[in-house]
Amino acid sequence: MRLNVGIIGAGRIGKIHVDNLRAIPQIRVKSVSDVAIGSLQEWANERQIEVLTTNYSDILNDTEIDAVFICSPTNTHSRIIKEAALAGKHIFCEKPVSFAVEDTKSALQAVEQAGVKLQVGFNRRFDANFLKVRQLVQEGIIGTPHTLRITSRDPEPPSLEYIQSSGGLFMDMTIHDFDMARYIMGSEVVEVFANGAVLVDPLIGDAGDIDTAIISLKFANGALGVIENSRRAAYGYDQRLEVFGDKGAAKADNNRATTVEVSTSAHVTKEKPLYFFLERYTQAYIDEVNQFVRAVLENQQVCCSGFDGLQAERIAQAAKKSLETGAPVQLQLNEKSEAAIK
Amino acid sequence: MRLNVGIIGAGRIGKIHVDNLRAIPQIRVKSVSDVAIGSLQEWANERQIEVLTTNYSDILNDTEIDAVFICSPTNTHSRIIKEAALAGKHIFCEKPVSFAVEDTKSALQAVEQAGVKLQVGFNRRFDANFLKVRQLVQEGIIGTPHTLRITSRDPEPPSLEYIQSSGGLFMDMTIHDFDMARYIMGSEVVEVFANGAVLVDPLIGDAGDIDTAIISLKFANGALGVIENSRRAAYGYDQRLEVFGDKGAAKADNNRATTVEVSTSAHVTKEKPLYFFLERYTQAYIDEVNQFVRAVLENQQVCCSGFDGLQAERIAQAAKKSLETGAPVQLQLNEKSEAAIK
Amino acid sequence: MRLNVGIIGAGRIGKIHVDNLRAIPQIRVKSVSDVAIGSLQEWANERQIEVLTTNYSDILNDTEIDAVFICSPTNTHSRIIKEAALAGKHIFCEKPVSFAVEDTKSALQAVEQAGVKLQVGFNRRFDANFLKVRQLVQEGIIGTPHTLRITSRDPEPPSLEYIQSSGGLFMDMTIHDFDMARYIMGSEVVEVFANGAVLVDPLIGDAGDIDTAIISLKFANGALGVIENSRRAAYGYDQRLEVFGDKGAAKADNNRATTVEVSTSAHVTKEKPLYFFLERYTQAYIDEVNQFVRAVLENQQVCCSGFDGLQAERIAQAAKKSLETGAPVQLQLNEKSEAAIK
Amino acid sequence: MRLNVGIIGAGRIGKIHVDNLRAIPQIRVKSVSDVAIGSLQEWANERQIEVLTTNYSDILNDTEIDAVFICSPTNTHSRIIKEAALAGKHIFCEKPVSFAVEDTKSALQAVEQAGVKLQVGFNRRFDANFLKVRQLVQEGIIGTPHTLRITSRDPEPPSLEYIQSSGGLFMDMTIHDFDMARYIMGSEVVEVFANGAVLVDPLIGDAGDIDTAIISLKFANGALGVIENSRRAAYGYDQRLEVFGDKGAAKADNNRATTVEVSTSAHVTKEKPLYFFLERYTQAYIDEVNQFVRAVLENQQVCCSGFDGLQAERIAQAAKKSLETGAPVQLQLNEKSEAAIK
Repeated sequence: MRLNVGIIGAGRIGKIHVDNLRAIPQIRVKSVSDVAIGSLQEWANERQIEVLTTNYSDILNDTEIDAVFICSPTNTHSRIIKEAALAGKHIFCEKPVSFAVEDTKSALQAVEQAGVKLQVGFNRRFDANFLKVRQLVQEGIIGTPHTLRITSRDPEPPSLEYIQSSGGLFMDMTIHDFDMARYIMGSEVVEVFANGAVLVDPLIGDAGDIDTAIISLKFANGALGVIENSRRAAYGYDQRLEVFGDKGAAKADNNRATTVEVSTSAHVTKEKPLYFFLERYTQAYIDEVNQFVRAVLENQQVCCSGFDGLQAERIAQAAKKSLETGAPVQLQLNEKSEAAIK
Repeated sequence: MRLNVGIIGAGRIGKIHVDNLRAIPQIRVKSVSDVAIGSLQEWANERQIEVLTTNYSDILNDTEIDAVFICSPTNTHSRIIKEAALAGKHIFCEKPVSFAVEDTKSALQAVEQAGVKLQVGFNRRFDANFLKVRQLVQEGIIGTPHTLRITSRDPEPPSLEYIQSSGGLFMDMTIHDFDMARYIMGSEVVEVFANGAVLVDPLIGDAGDIDTAIISLKFANGALGVIENSRRAAYGYDQRLEVFGDKGAAKADNNRATTVEVSTSAHVTKEKPLYFFLERYTQAYIDEVNQFVRAVLENQQVCCSGFDGLQAERIAQAAKKSLETGAPVQLQLNEKSEAAIK
Repeated sequence: MRLNVGIIGAGRIGKIHVDNLRAIPQIRVKSVSDVAIGSLQEWANERQIEVLTTNYSDILNDTEIDAVFICSPTNTHSRIIKEAALAGKHIFCEKPVSFAVEDTKSALQAVEQAGVKLQVGFNRRFDANFLKVRQLVQEGIIGTPHTLRITSRDPEPPSLEYIQSSGGLFMDMTIHDFDMARYIMGSEVVEVFANGAVLVDPLIGDAGDIDTAIISLKFANGALGVIENSRRAAYGYDQRLEVFGDKGAAKADNNRATTVEVSTSAHVTKEKPLYFFLERYTQAYIDEVNQFVRAVLENQQVCCSGFDGLQAERIAQAAKKSLETGAPVQLQLNEKSEAAIK
Repeated sequence: MRLNVGIIGAGRIGKIHVDNLRAIPQIRVKSVSDVAIGSLQEWANERQIEVLTTNYSDILNDTEIDAVFICSPTNTHSRIIKEAALAGKHIFCEKPVSFAVEDTKSALQAVEQAGVKLQVGFNRRFDANFLKVRQLVQEGIIGTPHTLRITSRDPEPPSLEYIQSSGGLFMDMTIHDFDMARYIMGSEVVEVFANGAVLVDPLIGDAGDIDTAIISLKFANGALGVIENSRRAAYGYDQRLEVFGDKGAAKADNNRATTVEVSTSAHVTKEKPLYFFLERYTQAYIDEVNQFVRAVLENQQVCCSGFDGLQAERIAQAAKKSLETGAPVQLQLNEKSEAAIK
């Protein structure tokens, strides 16, 4: 069986998905849409892409297309999800699903009604380090989880333009960590308290955002958690976590380009962490796409559902509200919550 | 020049101070007082201690005594400090100075009026790992500090009797971390938000305390921090910290008994952390006593003053209040604060 | 420009090369020959391979073929190299080139006369860890190299049948380390002293081979070296090296599946090394093939020449002689040697 | 019970033993002899040493003295051992016992006839790391040992004067490693092949010695080993070992002043190894003296006997001969050997 795929939005991440999809024998990347296709012709030719269009409806209207990857700007996601669902396409959508919980909910409703698959691009769930920690937790190796700590620092902030349209640190960057928190702990977040600061660049503050945050979490199972974020780590992309339980602890460290250690009269050095997400999550991007393809071909559950996307957004909004009010913010447990998260 | 020292309270920590003092050439440990001296006779003889008494006033009234170490229960500290100050003795006092900020303040006042030295036993300041991180921060190696993370987990909880009289987790255990936070960051804590839980042992909850905590901090210099505590880590005493700044990060890991790594078909293992504070801070206990002796003999400032003790207590009280109210608690900056902390 | 490639011998390594070649845009894997093609039909179809033959001459006689990969048994290498050179094909040949230095020399002569490229499959040269150490040495970071230590242990021995036809430990397994020694040190080996033992499996001894070895080396530049081999490490594939010079040392450690560390009451564990060469050298196999393709397409020097293959074999033979005689064995410097190795 | 001790030779190591002995309650360091006592008066007074003499016979003739520490130059060791044994004193002697196997043998004979204890100062046996590896081997955790690797590099060479009278690298420096090899493997060395070079300082070569060595070993139990030495490691004192067996491997790494790791835009650094033997083996020096005192007081076997000293010297001599002849040198198994080593 073969799957025909269309890509909506051929920016950096869309292009990565194309190459990862092409390496899968059962996949044919037939179509790509983008607002600016002028510079994409050669790239598309080299990859035997048959349809290159500025209008994503060309993809949705193509009855040969089985699945679409939505890699366009966030403010277009929920609309395209609804249209794609209506057209009966399976959907892989980059995170976040939308900037507004209500938008996300209505998109998920459309997906549910259409009975198509929807996977949200929380690529870090596929990172070998984090996956291993999750497995250790699920196997009970560290016992009942008591606390979780996530460190997530970018090597440098995005452009101010991007920041202004990103939905803010919590919605753009921490959303990955909110999803990771649920994924590792296997429990919903029920309270958020956020401290934020502008320490990296005052222009980020001028743009109405923060660049540094420490966010305290309470989980439905009684455990506690904390997420630490910075928009700029001088030494590179810092992606670690540690979960502590009554039988022990498991921690995931950064990946490095080599294992080489150098000792001189000045110091003993090892490699810095891999620079950024493209280097750190190369394999995770491959694995998430493989997982989606398998879920569609074998009619299995996706690893990272629309509901997961929704819950992460809800936590992000709570964090935002906590930052604004200076007080902790409670989250209601959805009836699906604890069942869905396991 | 020689210093004659008396020890008030010969429990576990009092005895350790005696042995560490005896190894210093300029020191004569002349007297020891304890409520129960029956079992101490042989111990005292082996150490050439001349006076063994149940009445600590015998020590304060001995004009030959230059300095006293107060290692009695916390609820006696402030009273003995005042009496010792009045008697003109230099004072080393175990932490905390008292359970009530007002008590501590009045003790400090007595010390100030008497013009004697007072060092508070925040032994962790002398740990080589943490000292090194502090130096790196002060030398600007990691730039302006943005965030601080302290992990502090005991290998097992104290007895329930101890917990009931300990002043609670924040006053008994986290107080070390509150002091460490000020010490590393070189800035006062101005806001505390505490999450706590009873996850280790429900009897601790029945005793009115918590055993697990994540505490968010804001510093006067704008930086953020977080402290993570547990009363029981299955793998031993876990004492780490990491400070992150605009030029990089420095982290201190646990100490282990050996560097040996073993690889078998089952796994690759290294040593667990040293079991508890007596193993981990053996050298720190030696160094803090040496520092106090030097401060007295050479009339220098102590490394860890009564004011430091007071500030840690104030943060502990704020944390307690935050836990009770579920809201962040602000701390007023004392006029001495930022000057004193540098 | 496009390169048409034929594969001679489609065993495990031949198949890996096919998949790695297919991922390169400029490459068309047109033909595969193998003595047993019955079971290869489906595999070949899935990969759009046009010619599947039992007769490798079909590939050499195909004028469309630009380059061949020789992945057949070692005892066929030199003959096929000569024929392929005569046919004007560029050649990638698995190590070793042959079991006899004279055979290798005559094959290299044919290659030289034909003016084709020949790259020998010392894949470890492309491992990121070892490559990094080589660069550090070449950049002078560790100063003048004084000593080199290579640890090379397999997770389990090959079959006895394989051992009997392998040419022995030095020719089959250590040959990679002999090449690595030259590669890292940038100098020829001029003396070998080999200690060997049968400690893993007496049947290996019955087959006339050893399974454990420590080999002392002297280099032309005056440095010393040592290689340690075992056919079976209980914990997996152990591939490390350390070079020590007057300004410091650089060491390359094993790769592991994840960075996860687990602490329990029993122990602190991390992952074992990746199991074997297919896992450890996945990327190195990709990189060596890319390098060969680039060398052919851009008419550049190969990274790992026939001369490198010859020198490694000469050291292996010297080691064998040392083991037999119990005495160190000298190697004459070839006039090409020191020039070629840089 | 109390032990009266005399120290013969109050150089650097003699003074260290004095301080370590004084910390043991049962010990009275009564007498010290040295050829130059002029500068030692104050040092001796501070330590309540009663007898300070230029004539070590004053110590041997003092009937109150129970045990002596021989810390004088190596060429005086065997003579003083004999005289001390004749005087009925227990003996702690620095390594090596002598420069000539025959001298050592005659000294050991005197000790045996007198029935006194003799411990040789192989302090590294007491290092926590190496001790742990030995225990792991003895407990069978790594199975039957197959290979041993010892890395032993000094941070800087001794003075040329010292080198000229030291007996050469193997007798002065590697002798510790020869002893360690026997200690870890629990088996005698039966063959030595030594490669040596002058790479650190040509003046060391002019003085007739080498400064770099790789020494291959065969053990009586069939295992293989290798020792790597350098007189100068730019990054400090490098003292590691790894033993590999059929069930796994155990390795001991260097000790460092702190666990602190610093990440900046330039690199990730950790501490260099502790600078030299006084820092690395501080605790081992304390432990070896405690062990000797216990052996005398409780009439137990010493951990490190005269026979151990003799065997290490025999290996050193064999290594020297191997270096001179360029061939491996066999060592006869003494009848005591395998029994004694367990």
